[in-house]
Amino acid sequence: MRNISQKISVPFHYTVHFTRDIFANENALVQKVTKNGNVMPSKILCVVDSGVCGAHKGLIHRIVEYCGRRRQALRLVCPPMIVPGGERVKNTGIYVARVQESIQKYGLCRHSYVMAIGGGAVLDMAGFAAATAHRGVRLIRIPTTVLAQNDSGVGVKNGINAFDNKNFLGTFVPPYAVLNDSDFLETLSDRDWRAGTAEAIKVAALRNPQFFRWIERHARALTARDRRAMEFLIRRCAELHLQHIATTDDPFELGSSRPLDFGHWAAHKLELLTSFRLRHGEAVAIGIALDSTYAKLMGMLPERDWQRIINLLVNLGFTLRIPKRFQRLNGCDDPSLLDHGLAEFREHLGGELTIMLLQGIGVGVEVHEINTRILSESIATLDRVCPSRKKAKEPFVWTGLRQPSDGCSRPIER
Amino acid sequence: MRNISQKISVPFHYTVHFTRDIFANENALVQKVTKNGNVMPSKILCVVDSGVCGAHKGLIHRIVEYCGRRRQALRLVCPPMIVPGGERVKNTGIYVARVQESIQKYGLCRHSYVMAIGGGAVLDMAGFAAATAHRGVRLIRIPTTVLAQNDSGVGVKNGINAFDNKNFLGTFVPPYAVLNDSDFLETLSDRDWRAGTAEAIKVAALRNPQFFRWIERHARALTARDRRAMEFLIRRCAELHLQHIATTDDPFELGSSRPLDFGHWAAHKLELLTSFRLRHGEAVAIGIALDSTYAKLMGMLPERDWQRIINLLVNLGFTLRIPKRFQRLNGCDDPSLLDHGLAEFREHLGGELTIMLLQGIGVGVEVHEINTRILSESIATLDRVCPSRKKAKEPFVWTGLRQPSDGCSRPIER
Repeated sequence: MRNISQKISVPFHYTVHFTRDIFANENALVQKVTKNGNVMPSKILCVVDSGVCGAHKGLIHRIVEYCGRRRQALRLVCPPMIVPGGERVKNTGIYVARVQESIQKYGLCRHSYVMAIGGGAVLDMAGFAAATAHRGVRLIRIPTTVLAQNDSGVGVKNGINAFDNKNFLGTFVPPYAVLNDSDFLETLSDRDWRAGTAEAIKVAALRNPQFFRWIERHARALTARDRRAMEFLIRRCAELHLQHIATTDDPFELGSSRPLDFGHWAAHKLELLTSFRLRHGEAVAIGIALDSTYAKLMGMLPERDWQRIINLLVNLGFTLRIPKRFQRLNGCDDPSLLDHGLAEFREHLGGELTIMLLQGIGVGVEVHEINTRILSESIATLDRVCPSRKKAKEPFVWTGLRQPSDGCSRPIER
Repeated sequence: MRNISQKISVPFHYTVHFTRDIFANENALVQKVTKNGNVMPSKILCVVDSGVCGAHKGLIHRIVEYCGRRRQALRLVCPPMIVPGGERVKNTGIYVARVQESIQKYGLCRHSYVMAIGGGAVLDMAGFAAATAHRGVRLIRIPTTVLAQNDSGVGVKNGINAFDNKNFLGTFVPPYAVLNDSDFLETLSDRDWRAGTAEAIKVAALRNPQFFRWIERHARALTARDRRAMEFLIRRCAELHLQHIATTDDPFELGSSRPLDFGHWAAHKLELLTSFRLRHGEAVAIGIALDSTYAKLMGMLPERDWQRIINLLVNLGFTLRIPKRFQRLNGCDDPSLLDHGLAEFREHLGGELTIMLLQGIGVGVEVHEINTRILSESIATLDRVCPSRKKAKEPFVWTGLRQPSDGCSRPIER
């Protein structure tokens, strides 16, 4: 009998909104976004990051008040559910099960809303629960960190960690809407404020030299916590991220190519090895520095572009030294150990090893083989050229690059 | 700041293959389908329904032999995992977790394969595990029942039951490929052989009068277990099902419309109320009969078409009486109780209540309101006109329709 060939194309549409003071009386955004055209009010299950609750006293009360004033349009099905922030919420299946159970208990349907407020980890967890209950309840993301507002919170992924693997369980499901409120950024620590800019540098270095230049020019404003500069950075980064998803022919990553994973193979490993003491953005900054150094040593990336990248990362305050533990495990001494980390990344991708590198600022190129000896040398190079945070006198603004004493600019042996 | 409007379209492509004796030495289908273009053999985690193992002695051995002979192309990462068949495998999260754990333990990546062999329940469970590990490992479905081969196994859903709700947890993810082997049908009980034909009647009644006529003509052959007739029925039903998914603009059911859920609102409830002692197909047959009778009593469906539907269901051997427990709970005596069942279905759909009914064979129409008094009358009507199985002398071939003594053909009071 003849086979049946099935081709389908599934359309998704969502909007990333930018606002301030989202639960202010006069701010109608949440109501507008959840409007369902029915006579009945929209059911909302609200999940909030405990860290955000701690930093924004009265937030829960304001959410309840906001929905109470609009009770003909919005119905909070229960008091907001407070969950731990950071990787803790992703390291167990308990919170996912709690959200799913509440979806059932309070009779949410596929046209109801899970409204998740928090950092990327809480959004990932709540997103996974929402994506799998009733095969998908609508997810409203209200990201509260730079990283979540410009990167993870606007994309199409969710997930939790399992079996010692980061994001081992998850799905590809676009959110129903993303509401970015820059007021949440005010209470971030300097570390979190800075960490999120790594994804902007990544996407600028890969796709947009103008944006890279803009970040260079505004590095001082960003480290001085200029709100408007950060709002611009977030919007532009989110836009470039979304453009990439919309214009690739593989938004759910069925192939092996992951252009936006530039700098991420090492980042994933660094986060795990430091038990997430390194923030994701901090790990990505190191990953960008490492892969850029590798590309330079391989003769792919011009020295000048490499310097600009390292300078920008350091000027923004990132520490680029690779932790000793990573070096030990991944082998400055024994490059063959690096193979293991790369093999893990290949498995994460599925299929062929595909690493995005730079040929210049704004020019990414994929490679399928990595010379582990040169990679090992890249780690040593970074170690030499980047001042450790403890010793640096000006931790956030560092304008010069120490000339490497050897190795970095010599021709590569192949 | 300006919002960002994100539109994406996600393409999927998969093939439903038809074969016999899939693990025969000379049958290269599994190898062909899992070919990955890599030097390394494709990693396969095989999950098998215990019921299928019981009916096909030596199956596990044959699978291991098959892959062993093709070890340069295929690699079974561990002995096939045997799991219970039927709803038992969906009533707990244990089996999903076991499959996910094996995916991790044996280093499967997003380009590896979970090959699930079994009835719809096993495929649903394994599909959910595969869809969520690494955000999606490739799923090869080898359905072994009529129902799975012509309906659930070719579609884009997976799931397990949770919190007393059927398919409460699941996702929309197309399979990588579906391999239909009609040899598996030979050992089905008469009940399972028959049950799967209900979905064919459903899709024919909704979309294709020619196919409905074909089933009518071949009812006798089908009940006599004619293999070729069943192969044709399965292929045509699968094709119509797939055509629907491909031509709707909502393959992942983001809206409220579910054309292929004709007869399913009552079916879901019947399955739960009988603790799955009624097969899904048997419940769907009753659901089709109930909704057709309702449409007739509402004056939508001509009497003659209604008779053809009831006749065909009875001729194929379905028992169409609604269990007393359902009647009690859903209220022949108290139509208001029916609202509860309909409300549950609305919640399952999300949004607006949308029930597919017939205006004629091949002509479906959606309604958004149900007259529970008439629905209650439909239950009573079915009860009168359909002989109970125990009393019927010829359970599988019943050619006439008892004239209802009252009610059914009188004008409807509105």
